[in-house]
Amino acid sequence: MPVEPDAAIEITAFDWVPGFARGFVRDLRPRWACEEIGLAYSERLINPAGPRPEGYYAEQPWGQVPVLKEDGLEIFESGAILLHLGEKDERLLPRDPQARQRAISWLFAALNSVEPLIFELSTIDIFAKGEEWAELRRPSLMAFAGQRFDRLADALGEREWLAGPFSIADIAMATVLREADKTDLVSGRANLAAYLARALSRPAFERALTAQLDAFRDTPQPAAA
Amino acid sequence: MPVEPDAAIEITAFDWVPGFARGFVRDLRPRWACEEIGLAYSERLINPAGPRPEGYYAEQPWGQVPVLKEDGLEIFESGAILLHLGEKDERLLPRDPQARQRAISWLFAALNSVEPLIFELSTIDIFAKGEEWAELRRPSLMAFAGQRFDRLADALGEREWLAGPFSIADIAMATVLREADKTDLVSGRANLAAYLARALSRPAFERALTAQLDAFRDTPQPAAA
Repeated sequence: MPVEPDAAIEITAFDWVPGFARGFVRDLRPRWACEEIGLAYSERLINPAGPRPEGYYAEQPWGQVPVLKEDGLEIFESGAILLHLGEKDERLLPRDPQARQRAISWLFAALNSVEPLIFELSTIDIFAKGEEWAELRRPSLMAFAGQRFDRLADALGEREWLAGPFSIADIAMATVLREADKTDLVSGRANLAAYLARALSRPAFERALTAQLDAFRDTPQPAAA
Repeated sequence: MPVEPDAAIEITAFDWVPGFARGFVRDLRPRWACEEIGLAYSERLINPAGPRPEGYYAEQPWGQVPVLKEDGLEIFESGAILLHLGEKDERLLPRDPQARQRAISWLFAALNSVEPLIFELSTIDIFAKGEEWAELRRPSLMAFAGQRFDRLADALGEREWLAGPFSIADIAMATVLREADKTDLVSGRANLAAYLARALSRPAFERALTAQLDAFRDTPQPAAA
């Protein structure tokens, strides 16, 4: 099992988050990548309710997770961590130069051209639910996101994965698409729905999800949360 | 001058955009990177108002710019292109392993943790200006963005650049911060304001900006725009 206390790689995650965020925190991405290639990692669990550990903002400027540490290296932002893990194994990042560039292009596409729409949607549907602006804004955001998802569906076509073989691009994109699973943005587009189902049925995803959820198991709800 | 018709690298850009977007289109990022290291590139200018050239969505799934082509490679998303250019020269991406990871972490941070807030702000201040939801939403977005910019200012501290030496992370972050220049998000934080001014006073930035604006010079406003 990739979670091993003495592993050379350490991934920082939270030991508690509210129900709606469980299974969606971004340490899921590096956990999934490690699971794909059987790479052991240890967990450093921090509590999100109180102050961060001494010096943590120097590791992660937003106070969020994940941070990856390995051999004197410290990396933050799940996209940067995915890229670092991808360099380790062609099962995560193809070695053919064009396939590699394609995967990196799609990695950035997931995080800079698709996820920002989902961030705004999550604000509307979770954090600002019921507020007047959120109800007024939702239709135009969904229309814009729908156009973007149409393009994504066209670009994917009937291919199995975004960049040829499975890659870190699919880990990024599937975890982004999954955040829209309460809308018809994915379910209303057959090839995107099949793509997401294909990604989430990978045993490595299931193990990564279980590992994230396990980290919450023994932590009571923080008083400050 | 880096813009050379016979250069090995081709960057796709628009030949016309509306006034508010001039100087802010994302081909600015690779142009700037090329200017920093004196790397020649040719321009492929496309018109944003009509249909895209045949096959263009296969190059750039959103129909946007930039795309970089070099030696049989095709790369989309400005972040992926910056990373590719960074690999060419340590003046864009340091070779020390930790400094390199720091720069890549900040590259993703600019595009996935800061720019999404600016996207939403641009929607409110430009595309949906005057709409009721936009006026109702703006205060909470500005409060959230303010917290994020406080963290960014803390993380930068008194350093000159994000990751030690100047890097692609600064090209990404400065072009993001510049999109917020009609608010006090940057100008209200002295070290961020100084950082942005320092970045934008680099001769390479000024040449890149001029090159983007030059591309609009001879194109009349499209009938469809």
